[in-house]
Amino acid sequence: MISSFYKEMTGKESVIRQFFDYSRARAAELGPDSVYNFSIGNPSVPAPQAFTDAVIRLMQEKDPVTLHGYSPTLGQPSTKKAIADSLNRRFGMNYGPEHIFPTSGAAGAIAHALRCVAGEGDSVITFAPYFPEYIPYVTGTGASLKVVPADTDSFQINFDAFLDMLAPDVAAVLINTPNNPSGIVYTEATIRRLAEILTEKEKEYGHEIFLITDEPYRELVFSGVEHPFVSAYYDNSICCYSFSKSISIPGERIGYVAVNPKAKDAEYIVPMCGQISRFTGHNCPSSLMQLAVEPVLDETSDISIYETNAELLYKELTRMGYSIVKPMGTFYMFPKSPDPDANRFCWSAAKELGLINVPGDSFDCPGHFRISYCVPTERIEKALPLFEKALSL
Amino acid sequence: MISSFYKEMTGKESVIRQFFDYSRARAAELGPDSVYNFSIGNPSVPAPQAFTDAVIRLMQEKDPVTLHGYSPTLGQPSTKKAIADSLNRRFGMNYGPEHIFPTSGAAGAIAHALRCVAGEGDSVITFAPYFPEYIPYVTGTGASLKVVPADTDSFQINFDAFLDMLAPDVAAVLINTPNNPSGIVYTEATIRRLAEILTEKEKEYGHEIFLITDEPYRELVFSGVEHPFVSAYYDNSICCYSFSKSISIPGERIGYVAVNPKAKDAEYIVPMCGQISRFTGHNCPSSLMQLAVEPVLDETSDISIYETNAELLYKELTRMGYSIVKPMGTFYMFPKSPDPDANRFCWSAAKELGLINVPGDSFDCPGHFRISYCVPTERIEKALPLFEKALSL
Repeated sequence: MISSFYKEMTGKESVIRQFFDYSRARAAELGPDSVYNFSIGNPSVPAPQAFTDAVIRLMQEKDPVTLHGYSPTLGQPSTKKAIADSLNRRFGMNYGPEHIFPTSGAAGAIAHALRCVAGEGDSVITFAPYFPEYIPYVTGTGASLKVVPADTDSFQINFDAFLDMLAPDVAAVLINTPNNPSGIVYTEATIRRLAEILTEKEKEYGHEIFLITDEPYRELVFSGVEHPFVSAYYDNSICCYSFSKSISIPGERIGYVAVNPKAKDAEYIVPMCGQISRFTGHNCPSSLMQLAVEPVLDETSDISIYETNAELLYKELTRMGYSIVKPMGTFYMFPKSPDPDANRFCWSAAKELGLINVPGDSFDCPGHFRISYCVPTERIEKALPLFEKALSL
Repeated sequence: MISSFYKEMTGKESVIRQFFDYSRARAAELGPDSVYNFSIGNPSVPAPQAFTDAVIRLMQEKDPVTLHGYSPTLGQPSTKKAIADSLNRRFGMNYGPEHIFPTSGAAGAIAHALRCVAGEGDSVITFAPYFPEYIPYVTGTGASLKVVPADTDSFQINFDAFLDMLAPDVAAVLINTPNNPSGIVYTEATIRRLAEILTEKEKEYGHEIFLITDEPYRELVFSGVEHPFVSAYYDNSICCYSFSKSISIPGERIGYVAVNPKAKDAEYIVPMCGQISRFTGHNCPSSLMQLAVEPVLDETSDISIYETNAELLYKELTRMGYSIVKPMGTFYMFPKSPDPDANRFCWSAAKELGLINVPGDSFDCPGHFRISYCVPTERIEKALPLFEKALSL
């Protein structure tokens, strides 16, 4: 018989997906100009030319048997070394290739990192607002997810609530900075305080608490904003990265786990990722993609449009009366909903105005809504009057 | 703390890996000509030119934002349709795109298919000799693996032992034809008998028994050998395919699940695969790779060398006195070990002669050893005198 656990899930579409589907249906019915779709975090700028060139060059010049042959279980050695070198150069770290495990994007990275450090009977703490896929990533390990409520004034960490929630069963803490959906970057003060608390609690509980950092937006930080490299502040940390947003290749499914060389048992974690892959049937990402990212490790797509859009939206929406914590990076912002029921607000705006945003309820943070502004600036300009109208829905 | 379950595994290298590592160490010490490495199933012929051309064309001509954008959760629609059409055309089936789920190779396909139909408290039956990674694929679902001993006279199915092992807790049966490591293809009679037994037992137990078919070698069948398409013989079947061997791209990690349209609850299984991916962090294979296989679905690499090698090895080794069930496809054969302890035989041949094969113990079939002959024919010609010497080790 088919699994009732997974079967029952198939009926329940995510709210993000429902809005996305509504926007497609409306566009099909009323024409594409009748929809302003700010529901999806799909990069809108092309991959760097150097990436495209690298793929073509590999295909034209390299022996196909070697190029497309099995990647070693723990990843292409040259890719692992290049990633470690890039991180060391940019963030003053001391990674070796043995600390890097290429994965299928950040999803694969987080799923592997969590299985390394959490299981049955453990808890993993994260902070609202958070990416809803954290729920299956965590529960897939057998552990349970505990959520610290948001500090909606700043979207930094609500430390009082965090301290209340910490307990000896906490095996790991999962953070996402720059943050989806708030667009906020954790300040150095936030990261230092988090590291201090974890270090204290490790002593108190007599075991490690791993800090897992979900960093696909690391390169998407706006000018003048400092973005500390989290792993530099806490030894028992595992960085989970994806090239999806920084070089606009989300469909290619490539990212990595970078294990802090100073973490307890650091030398075991990448080989453990290799073992975990055998159980999930995941294996390495595409050999070609591993090699193709090597020349662009220190590059990004031209992401300046995201900052342009953020400035415009923030300025105009706050002028209209929206309350917004100013985004510091990513391509999201997370205004307070004019209607306290953000779900009702988003559906009304979608149906009456063709303005598609996602309610904060999806990110365990009701009363807010997410705008994904990875779209041409012109679409935002045209949507501004609709945002104004939405205020009186 | 890190997971002791996965940590303990990292110490234990697979026997195949040990032989592979030994062969590399020996080559480094004594020169590459001192090693005849028949331990690895990595294709030795290039991918079809049409595949290379397709990748380059996509990179040159398609909008990169679309090309590298997120694949829909259940796979690229055009790829799903093309795969369904190809299977229907070649095997008289009736797949729709909704029955196809692109995966990271056969590993991803089997891991997904098993999670759809087996879990805690269930058993999954497979037949020796079998690919050792079936153990983590099955135990990763929570089910346990039961192994039917080999019929070493033919490497078809030992039906008496199978009938003894069937029980109401059996949720699925996992077969691999053409077979790694035996090179044998199940005959139509074998498949019919298997289907009859499963149908009877489904009635007796009052629940479905899914037949999961691991088919990465489907296209690697030698001339004159019939290879029935298994899913045509049994409704509750899920075909797991990989392009790794047929078009020589194992590192690109692309394959698929094809759900028999006549299977019970067929319409749920692909959406369930999408849900399963969320827990394992797997997601779809590379968007580029999904699109790049479309033009080569009915093609293979020039695989004639595998048959040439099989003929040569079989003729010469049987002449020397080896006892071998003649391979019908793949790039493996599975002779009886001259020393009843195949592990000892393989290590002696490796150390004394530089002849690297893998003992059948790894495939739960002691007393045999596997030769992977996906190598240039000239390497086999040179190795023949060593196989002769190995007889008197």
